[in-house]
Amino acid sequence: MTDPVELPQIPAIVLVRPQMGENIGAAARAMWNFGLDRMRIVAPRDGWPNPAAVAMASGAGRLLDKAQLCDDLPVACADCDYVFATTARSRDLIKPVFSPEAAMTEAARRIASGQRVAVLFGPERAGLENEDIARANAIISVPVNPHFASLNLAQCVLLMGYEWMRAQGNVTAQQTQMAGTDWASGQEIEHLAAHYEERLETSGFFFPDHKVASMKLNLRNMWSRMPLTRADVQMLHGMMRQMVRWKERD
Amino acid sequence: MTDPVELPQIPAIVLVRPQMGENIGAAARAMWNFGLDRMRIVAPRDGWPNPAAVAMASGAGRLLDKAQLCDDLPVACADCDYVFATTARSRDLIKPVFSPEAAMTEAARRIASGQRVAVLFGPERAGLENEDIARANAIISVPVNPHFASLNLAQCVLLMGYEWMRAQGNVTAQQTQMAGTDWASGQEIEHLAAHYEERLETSGFFFPDHKVASMKLNLRNMWSRMPLTRADVQMLHGMMRQMVRWKERD
Repeated sequence: MTDPVELPQIPAIVLVRPQMGENIGAAARAMWNFGLDRMRIVAPRDGWPNPAAVAMASGAGRLLDKAQLCDDLPVACADCDYVFATTARSRDLIKPVFSPEAAMTEAARRIASGQRVAVLFGPERAGLENEDIARANAIISVPVNPHFASLNLAQCVLLMGYEWMRAQGNVTAQQTQMAGTDWASGQEIEHLAAHYEERLETSGFFFPDHKVASMKLNLRNMWSRMPLTRADVQMLHGMMRQMVRWKERD
Repeated sequence: MTDPVELPQIPAIVLVRPQMGENIGAAARAMWNFGLDRMRIVAPRDGWPNPAAVAMASGAGRLLDKAQLCDDLPVACADCDYVFATTARSRDLIKPVFSPEAAMTEAARRIASGQRVAVLFGPERAGLENEDIARANAIISVPVNPHFASLNLAQCVLLMGYEWMRAQGNVTAQQTQMAGTDWASGQEIEHLAAHYEERLETSGFFFPDHKVASMKLNLRNMWSRMPLTRADVQMLHGMMRQMVRWKERD
């Protein structure tokens, strides 16, 4: 999943469970219009490669050739330090919400400080699931006419690309507040979340049944929202391991 | 050509000699996504009304019904005080050149002062003629990838609509959703830290002795560094309580 080091770092555009090949191709064109060429595709409905996508991408076909096909979202974000989720509807999940401009400025700032950033786009029909968004660090909300919000996938990608290009002008070399901090990767957060979910499941934490789904969602969302370092993650793993040892000791 | 006075003044979107009905319909949707509903159409290639435009405009059809059909550009701009011309290629003509953001900010300023503003978009194939641009007061140039500038008519309209909405100040600023968040108080964080420290102490987590102090410090530091909500804190208390119940169950 890692990009060759010699490539300039730019946000990865992650299409989550896209449906129409035409839209994947149109998204590739929208990306390349603003110099974005790092596409990742998670579980496309019609498989991959997709001839309809290639036909629509004319001029940006190279992005599809280079696109990284992923089985699921955790794999697609494994090497990412910060993940934005684009969403039209507001969600109950507590996350920072960025405007497209603020998000791409933040992305440029993080990338300048050596982080890897991804932006998630959901399926055409329904958009991202809460389970997807719970894995993201922040939400991007596009301001649209509340009486008519009909941006399609490629249009949403287009606006992010446009703001990314605009952000190239106003990037300051400013470092993150905790520069040098060894932040946990998306993959490490994913493993932590899975470890806790598994152990808490065994311990009977997820109860009653009708609340299990939302309890798990809230826990996921908490982990992905926390600015966790590698050391934090190791400590949290250790805490849970010790609680289990304690249980099994006698 | 004059809009009823009770209508709020917004820029008129003028499609000059558009070719494909589909693109006219897509432009209508792009406009309405950002609250623009004043469309003018100059000498459409395939005549007017255009069934293909209506089919594509689904949801924004009202804009087409209201669209003003004009024989030529001078008629379309007759009532306008300031006209922007969108163009990809740079021209020899001496005109002020605006970025989309600067143009829509300027448009908002002029409209607030009572002027009427229009934005011209050329035919899909070749864009505006120099004769068209010569009639405009200023040029809008969209920053795109110099190696791949393939914005279509509706996408160009979409970007202007987006910048128009941004110029209204409607844009939800960064992190709005976090604003109303019910953050845990320092005291609640303190109780959480104490609860975990006590239970982990009992479970034998703090080991070996010479590391106990730094382990406790790191744990304290982690809790205090995390942006925890009241709900997070309750969940974390519950997780630990359940691990203890689990231990004591048998």
